[in-house]
Amino acid sequence: MTALRSFVSGRWHVPPDEGRPVLDAVTGEEVARISAAGVDRAAALAYGRSAGGPALRELTFHQRALLLKQLALYLREHRKELYTLSARTGATLADSRIDVDGGIGVLLSYGSKGRRELPNDTVLVEGEVEPLGKGGTFVGRHLCTPLPGVAVQINAFNFPMWGPLEKFAPAFLAGMPSLIKPATPTAYLTHKLVELIVASGLLPEGTVQLLCGEAGDLLDHLTEQDVVGFTGSAATAARLRDHPTVAARSVRFNAEADSLNCSVLGPDARPGTPEFDLYVQQLVTEMTAKAGQKCTAIRRAIVPADLLGAVAEATAERLAAVKIGNPAGDGVTMGPLAAREQRDEVRRAVKALMGAADTIYGDPGRVAVIDADAERGAFLSPILLRADDPGRGEVHEVEAFGPVATLMPYNSTREAVELAARGRGSLVGSVVTADTGFAREVVFGVAPWHGRILVLNAEDAAESTGHGSPLPMLVHGGPGRAGGGEELGGIRGVLHHMQRTAVQAGPAMMSALTGRWTQGAPRAEGVHPFRKHLGELRVGDSVTAGPRTVTLADVEHFAEFTGDTFYAHMNQEAAAANPFFEGRVAHGYMIVSLAAGLFVDPDPGPVLANYGLENLRFLTPVYPGDDLSVTLTAKQITPREDADYGEVRWDTRVTNQDGAVVAAYDVLTMVRKEGTE
Amino acid sequence: MTALRSFVSGRWHVPPDEGRPVLDAVTGEEVARISAAGVDRAAALAYGRSAGGPALRELTFHQRALLLKQLALYLREHRKELYTLSARTGATLADSRIDVDGGIGVLLSYGSKGRRELPNDTVLVEGEVEPLGKGGTFVGRHLCTPLPGVAVQINAFNFPMWGPLEKFAPAFLAGMPSLIKPATPTAYLTHKLVELIVASGLLPEGTVQLLCGEAGDLLDHLTEQDVVGFTGSAATAARLRDHPTVAARSVRFNAEADSLNCSVLGPDARPGTPEFDLYVQQLVTEMTAKAGQKCTAIRRAIVPADLLGAVAEATAERLAAVKIGNPAGDGVTMGPLAAREQRDEVRRAVKALMGAADTIYGDPGRVAVIDADAERGAFLSPILLRADDPGRGEVHEVEAFGPVATLMPYNSTREAVELAARGRGSLVGSVVTADTGFAREVVFGVAPWHGRILVLNAEDAAESTGHGSPLPMLVHGGPGRAGGGEELGGIRGVLHHMQRTAVQAGPAMMSALTGRWTQGAPRAEGVHPFRKHLGELRVGDSVTAGPRTVTLADVEHFAEFTGDTFYAHMNQEAAAANPFFEGRVAHGYMIVSLAAGLFVDPDPGPVLANYGLENLRFLTPVYPGDDLSVTLTAKQITPREDADYGEVRWDTRVTNQDGAVVAAYDVLTMVRKEGTE
Repeated sequence: MTALRSFVSGRWHVPPDEGRPVLDAVTGEEVARISAAGVDRAAALAYGRSAGGPALRELTFHQRALLLKQLALYLREHRKELYTLSARTGATLADSRIDVDGGIGVLLSYGSKGRRELPNDTVLVEGEVEPLGKGGTFVGRHLCTPLPGVAVQINAFNFPMWGPLEKFAPAFLAGMPSLIKPATPTAYLTHKLVELIVASGLLPEGTVQLLCGEAGDLLDHLTEQDVVGFTGSAATAARLRDHPTVAARSVRFNAEADSLNCSVLGPDARPGTPEFDLYVQQLVTEMTAKAGQKCTAIRRAIVPADLLGAVAEATAERLAAVKIGNPAGDGVTMGPLAAREQRDEVRRAVKALMGAADTIYGDPGRVAVIDADAERGAFLSPILLRADDPGRGEVHEVEAFGPVATLMPYNSTREAVELAARGRGSLVGSVVTADTGFAREVVFGVAPWHGRILVLNAEDAAESTGHGSPLPMLVHGGPGRAGGGEELGGIRGVLHHMQRTAVQAGPAMMSALTGRWTQGAPRAEGVHPFRKHLGELRVGDSVTAGPRTVTLADVEHFAEFTGDTFYAHMNQEAAAANPFFEGRVAHGYMIVSLAAGLFVDPDPGPVLANYGLENLRFLTPVYPGDDLSVTLTAKQITPREDADYGEVRWDTRVTNQDGAVVAAYDVLTMVRKEGTE
Repeated sequence: MTALRSFVSGRWHVPPDEGRPVLDAVTGEEVARISAAGVDRAAALAYGRSAGGPALRELTFHQRALLLKQLALYLREHRKELYTLSARTGATLADSRIDVDGGIGVLLSYGSKGRRELPNDTVLVEGEVEPLGKGGTFVGRHLCTPLPGVAVQINAFNFPMWGPLEKFAPAFLAGMPSLIKPATPTAYLTHKLVELIVASGLLPEGTVQLLCGEAGDLLDHLTEQDVVGFTGSAATAARLRDHPTVAARSVRFNAEADSLNCSVLGPDARPGTPEFDLYVQQLVTEMTAKAGQKCTAIRRAIVPADLLGAVAEATAERLAAVKIGNPAGDGVTMGPLAAREQRDEVRRAVKALMGAADTIYGDPGRVAVIDADAERGAFLSPILLRADDPGRGEVHEVEAFGPVATLMPYNSTREAVELAARGRGSLVGSVVTADTGFAREVVFGVAPWHGRILVLNAEDAAESTGHGSPLPMLVHGGPGRAGGGEELGGIRGVLHHMQRTAVQAGPAMMSALTGRWTQGAPRAEGVHPFRKHLGELRVGDSVTAGPRTVTLADVEHFAEFTGDTFYAHMNQEAAAANPFFEGRVAHGYMIVSLAAGLFVDPDPGPVLANYGLENLRFLTPVYPGDDLSVTLTAKQITPREDADYGEVRWDTRVTNQDGAVVAAYDVLTMVRKEGTE
């Protein structure tokens, strides 16, 4: 029998004892044994801090992102092995795809976003420069630096692949090493994941550790710079949050707890509409995918009172077509729960719910299964309940973490919103409607109680990823009962692993600290900066050109050439009547065009292309007779990891003869890393 | 004697009992009595939720911001009354300015930022549209909605004006009512503040409540949608965070705790340099302003070992010039502590520090004071300590919350960074140096331990607001010992009072939900949208124009007219050698200029000006012979509260004859609200 090992302090730790058995969800046979006996948890944390963290922080965001991508491709090659093991957790192939491919998808998403939305640097500069004095000699800016601790990730049993990966990817990208603690019932799949990660040899040593078995004294050894990411029950979350070390050291603690998520059907979605069918179909999917063992599954189906019967009937009919059994079995669409203990818990919860609701489909004590033994495996029938009195507390409070949902009626939009809120905080809710007015009322009514809301209808159904699927680019988490946490959400999830620090300094010092030229800092003039390759170019390299006088003939000519004969350029009287102008003004587009004519260095060289412009503001009108000058200054230099060029952002200011800034913007160019001439 | 009243549930509550006396810090005389007996705290919270919240959420961000500005101006008119009362807390006029004017400054800052950086709407749309499917029929976006609860603000005694206002302003702007609980020793000043707020009649009823006296069972009545903002000791923060209701309901809890903030002197800052003088001057200011009773004051002065003597001597000399006494007294530059109990605590802390450090200035038991009785008032001498062994724990752990700081030496940059980190989390640190290399090493080394870092030198000294001053546009808070919280930071502080929700929908539904036109949603063509006033214009109103053929003559002409003869436009061979182009391409500036010529409606009308352009990207090269068309669609409409026009953001896409997007950007215009013709 496989004894699951922990991977700590740079080596695989074989437990010295027999450990506890972990059973196959389908057959009840032993899959592995688990024990964390002998693991020095304090040493593992110290190793992450001293080996993993520093190695990771040597890399830039782009380098880390590329490693995430490479790891994703490596794991994808080993998908089949993972699917095979995943089936033993009770997962059908469709379920395994959610877990395995979903986890790989998170790596790919962060691999991509890390390179598109973060700088190729080790520090993140967040937001704009804040002027702190009128004279421009004192400015502020926010820097985000990786926490020099360990991201301790305590995962739930239901997503042994996606769970660890969705916590690992943003931590890794931020520059924090991970210590992964899987839940016992499915730890063998996470164990396999870490085996593959280690075998890939892709990641710096110490950036991923695995603790198979009890957390033990792990939290006692946390410091102010560690982070805990927890997914599991609300009760455990509250207990861990109150851990004396966590509280005393203000350890960042992020919790995702399963919640009583709702799905609201719009009154427009009568039988025969696409939305009615979408609602029923989604409800059955959420009840049966992963056998309902998703923190995000629909637990409360809130439908118009006059449609309750129709929804109940259509849902029951679809549930009857669900084939339950061994995931390897023919046509099986729903597997067992992850463990028999889980089934016991669900049965207890169903019993509590039955005090306030009638069963309209399924029997918690009986289920027909394909190719398996219903009692030895953790099989359970889907169970649909109906609560005609939605005011009863149980249906909003008791969660059956399995293929169980409760239908309940509402009589007004307001009541629907109030019922949704009675979940006291959910990871996700959905509204199925084509009525934008109803959708607005429900979405804004329930938004403070939800981390995510799906509006489903014929418009998005074909591409919708569904109620239950968190996506890496959107936040995952919810208030109150859902744990009050927030994960993922693209770069937001990375920031949870970094300290935001407001830095105050003079502009020259700020430029040196941030690697971005800051208005007011010295500029270096000399060789035209368009003649410098990326490796030679320095932040602050600058060119000033002009003046060029703008004439009325220029304005008229530009109007004729472009066709832009807007009255403010062409009609003296009308222009003067405009609250912003004293008379005919030059076109903004002409100002930036003439500025380019002034600053450009025309011959072939390192500058390859102007690929865009940002934050352009016309600040002072330009009148015929004005003299324009322009100053272009290298503001930010971002070499690409996988190309022979990079991006240069140029601070651009066009001024008039009085020194007033008439236009300010950033010019974006691609510049070669090295000469090819 | 004044009995401080609470302002709860819409009325002033007079305590039925005598209450506890609150003493004048200078004279020891009774200023007021305080008691929260008889206050129904649950009712106050319920009133905030049912009256204040809904009234506030009726207003847009801009309307709330304007109220903040008006309140600031109102309070400014009553500054003198506030100064008078402030003096009784022991504050000198300079101290009162920090507290009173600083608090008013926070209101003004949020009043301004709210209108510049938030939409004139009740919901905040955060970040860009996230495409969730390849077909463009399923997209995601993050909405932030105000929490429908109460922001409970538990303040410290040291800033009875700034403290409540810095918590109130972002909560109010977010749409959350505040319940302010001042600390007993200085509650009378906060009481006066709330009296003024109520008298102003500016704010909707229920948006500000005041609880003078014990918190009692206040926290027991919190729900998932309330927020607690706490400022005070780390021990109290940990205790409140562990409150069963806070933990069980995942109540957002933000703590700012005073910390052992450090100031590091650079090795370049030798006696005679401006930085040496700045360091000493700042250290003395931080020790004596508010008699050192600032969470942000310098407690640890970390200086190069070879400069320790010089710094000690110069600091002692400056301290000797500090005039301590009645703030009303002649030339007094430092007042008493806020209360005699505080002095007792500081004396105890100094005693503990003296086990590891020598006193080089001041005597905790004796002080000469002007125009006051040193023992009846809470007077204490500034005390400078010197720890020659900076490895001792006390100097990094024991905080004396008064005019006390400890000097300690370092021998390498690395040691300076390690010493700074031994504070285990600080609100602020400062580095005084002109050496950018040293500054980089220290700033990045200590950033994960700090919420704010000031780099001070000759460049920014004239405008620097100093080590100890949090600013509304920068985050305030720090990890670990400093509480792990984050306040202010401009709009970041507003978001702490809102729930972020990821919304998923089709583009038409997303447009309806967000009030922003979303790519893929239907457009309405008809009357040219430039002919519509703000009140008539709808998101989605659109015009498509073109095509216009771009000729080689156009390219040559544009080059000649503007002077932009970049080789990619002028030289076929060189252009073709560029990795992005197949031959000579049109200027990007020409593309946007021609697009304007196509979409513009030239006659005088509601559109007043094009004031900018954002997010311009050139996506496909334009070659001579290409036909350009443009589609302009109203994307976001923002009427101004205080002008007869507003901003309209137009989604702009220029396409070629194949339908490929060659340029995408947002055009920003000012549009009149109503016709004046």
